[in-house]
Amino acid sequence: MSITRSLLADLRRAVGPQGYLEQAADIEPFLVDHRKLYRGATPLVLRPESTDQVSAIMRMCNEARVGVVPVGGNTGYCGGATPSEDGSQIVLSLARMRRIRAIDPLNYTMIAEAGCVLAEVQAAAASVDRLFPMSLGSEGSCQLGGNLSTNAGGTAVLRYGMMRDLILGLEVVLPDGRVLDNLKPLRKDNTGYDLRNLFIGAEGTLGVITAAACKLFSRPASNVTAFVGLTDPQRAVSLLSRLRTFTGDAVSTFELIPRTALELVLEYIPNTANPLDQGHDWYVLLEIGMGRQAESMREAIEAELAAAMEQGEISDAALAASESQREMFWRLRETIPEAQRHIGASIKHDVSVTTSELPRFIVEASQLVRALSPKGRIVSYGHLGDGNLHFNISRPIDSDDESFLRLAPNINRAVHDLIARYGGSISAEHGIGRLKREELVRYEPPVAIEVMRAIKQALDPNGIMNPGKVL
Amino acid sequence: MSITRSLLADLRRAVGPQGYLEQAADIEPFLVDHRKLYRGATPLVLRPESTDQVSAIMRMCNEARVGVVPVGGNTGYCGGATPSEDGSQIVLSLARMRRIRAIDPLNYTMIAEAGCVLAEVQAAAASVDRLFPMSLGSEGSCQLGGNLSTNAGGTAVLRYGMMRDLILGLEVVLPDGRVLDNLKPLRKDNTGYDLRNLFIGAEGTLGVITAAACKLFSRPASNVTAFVGLTDPQRAVSLLSRLRTFTGDAVSTFELIPRTALELVLEYIPNTANPLDQGHDWYVLLEIGMGRQAESMREAIEAELAAAMEQGEISDAALAASESQREMFWRLRETIPEAQRHIGASIKHDVSVTTSELPRFIVEASQLVRALSPKGRIVSYGHLGDGNLHFNISRPIDSDDESFLRLAPNINRAVHDLIARYGGSISAEHGIGRLKREELVRYEPPVAIEVMRAIKQALDPNGIMNPGKVL
Repeated sequence: MSITRSLLADLRRAVGPQGYLEQAADIEPFLVDHRKLYRGATPLVLRPESTDQVSAIMRMCNEARVGVVPVGGNTGYCGGATPSEDGSQIVLSLARMRRIRAIDPLNYTMIAEAGCVLAEVQAAAASVDRLFPMSLGSEGSCQLGGNLSTNAGGTAVLRYGMMRDLILGLEVVLPDGRVLDNLKPLRKDNTGYDLRNLFIGAEGTLGVITAAACKLFSRPASNVTAFVGLTDPQRAVSLLSRLRTFTGDAVSTFELIPRTALELVLEYIPNTANPLDQGHDWYVLLEIGMGRQAESMREAIEAELAAAMEQGEISDAALAASESQREMFWRLRETIPEAQRHIGASIKHDVSVTTSELPRFIVEASQLVRALSPKGRIVSYGHLGDGNLHFNISRPIDSDDESFLRLAPNINRAVHDLIARYGGSISAEHGIGRLKREELVRYEPPVAIEVMRAIKQALDPNGIMNPGKVL
Repeated sequence: MSITRSLLADLRRAVGPQGYLEQAADIEPFLVDHRKLYRGATPLVLRPESTDQVSAIMRMCNEARVGVVPVGGNTGYCGGATPSEDGSQIVLSLARMRRIRAIDPLNYTMIAEAGCVLAEVQAAAASVDRLFPMSLGSEGSCQLGGNLSTNAGGTAVLRYGMMRDLILGLEVVLPDGRVLDNLKPLRKDNTGYDLRNLFIGAEGTLGVITAAACKLFSRPASNVTAFVGLTDPQRAVSLLSRLRTFTGDAVSTFELIPRTALELVLEYIPNTANPLDQGHDWYVLLEIGMGRQAESMREAIEAELAAAMEQGEISDAALAASESQREMFWRLRETIPEAQRHIGASIKHDVSVTTSELPRFIVEASQLVRALSPKGRIVSYGHLGDGNLHFNISRPIDSDDESFLRLAPNINRAVHDLIARYGGSISAEHGIGRLKREELVRYEPPVAIEVMRAIKQALDPNGIMNPGKVL
């Protein structure tokens, strides 16, 4: 159904004068997704300040059968928060709901609203000497609600899990405006079905998450951050197992970086240097966080890396000697996407396989890509500890963006078909949004799609929650 | 609908001669629950050996509208696996599906079938130098499928989480026989809604779990196990925070034990002794598992406990000096329920609140109970690290079981009402089953119940999955 003037007036009234945007310039940032893949239209961006206001909005839109698109920091990669082109959907920004409602260091929990920027949540935890471990590139602008709706991943999943693993309870406004209050900060609660995990990762298609009870952890008293050179990914897999065992699963980051990626970073990003004396075919950035008991940990891990070197598992390693060096090590990893943008268009894949099969997957996927684009520059890096690879191909030096991107459908198909043969995932951490809807239907088992549709129908019978996304 | 002879014949044919029980003596163990609260009836216990057979069974029962009650090791506390009294339901035992289908130490994962006994799953992990951390009293007889369906807890939740946190994927037979194959052992997979968490903890009311992809961990190279005496639970909460911080969250067990419970164990359980020189009002059994790097950990933790003693946080502490001493420490905790049985009937509660509020809850709940049963012996022990308390009351010495148990409804109501005021859970780890259905409706927010019913209706429209349980 279309949006009537009277509905618009009711919605404006529900949120008050501070609660909406309708001038073209104000609305503009909500019309385009982070990767500029889509441009939508909307007559109204709502900015409610309370759960009650969200509830009122949903009730009205449900009665009018008008679609609602929830948006957080708009940093997603799959267009999941962009309205449709026809202007028939309302955008719902949670940005004004940014209170930390409660924080309990002895219970290791915090209750925060969906509009909190991730960095604020991290800072609130740190202020009581606790850690909220979710960490990713856009943490300065992405919002907790978006992290929840996309089940965000990032660089600490190996030890602390995805967003799903960090949540004890949720407050959700259902499509018809009812409020589902499951915000208890309890570690154990076996009373009926688990509802929170339906909404986590549903990309706003089942309801609007307005607040969450989050798990906190102890802040590591010290971190060992190492940059390691090695000859191949198989050795990286062995090193991961060695260090997980050695440290009692205290490895929080284990990122694989190929020679091409480091060279791009060193060429295009200022203030970067290879921490190792020579170049290597592959690198690993790893971090191990430990408590105060482990004052001798640094030496012990240094000795263990020396043993790995003697046994030929790794070729070289450097340990960050200061906080600034640690930051530089991290910059080498985090600026890879930026460095890649300097060399033209790229075709990206966010895939996962088992950690043990990841080395073989890289070899086979690279062969497939070379058959389709012999000079395409493969930049395959990512979270080896979780089996999550960002398998990207930048255009050849002697080509142009447009003709290279014409290869995308064939390259995507080849890589995703290979993923299917490995029993892997075609979207490890970026979700489905609008971009991968057809891929989802192609690769997900039909029974799973049927069950998802049954759940969507049960919770959102009028189909007003983020229409056109995921399913 | 009732069970026809032709349906029984079809079901027997589907599973073959080894696949069913129908003699009264063979069926008997499936008719009574672990706590002997319920006695049901059934004409047939099916024991399929494959997912295909389970699928065939469900298809037939769905067409005939006949209820199916899945059962694992039958060790549940809430009657969730006992058929109804009228003999109208079929029992489905997964005991013959007990293969470990795959184990991948480098990926830290295992795929196991639902009928595997928990101890077998632990042993399979240990055989490749890995840890499957789920651990609970009945691990020698409970089955993985039951652990999954009840979202089991146990003594390592503090560090490793509930069953839900240990699972990457599931194979589920839906009520109409369709097989939902989401068995990928991937740590990251954001393709559509999270379906596995619907079935985990649903107590067999949404489908039959036939296999699971489980997370594994590094086996700790060494454990420090300590038995600590202290004056009150508040100090235990402080000690937990101190040790989590000190060890970088390596505390895996933190069990609170009151003086009454230890005295019962020492009186009734052979080969037990107080590891400390004196009696204390409260004790904590704690365990910290660490990797090979931490050879000096024992001394460091000993020093930290000495510091806690100097600061008045704890009164005394003993560290297990050998594996046999460690086992004895554990026996002191694990035999509490057995010791309690020696002193007559008890009224039990499996509740949780935040860890920080748990000390105050114990005080208030004890006051309420004393008003209703001045001489009832309160034995409140449990997993303090998760806020999960087994708040039990044994009958007074000068009373009898029957007249004491007449107090149960009033005492339950008082304790659960207090839990509601604390925002806690009336079933932290034992689930709902048949026992707590009315309590669930009383204490769960109505919107949550409505959403659960909508999901039940969407997935099991004929209501044949474990009828009469949970909802």
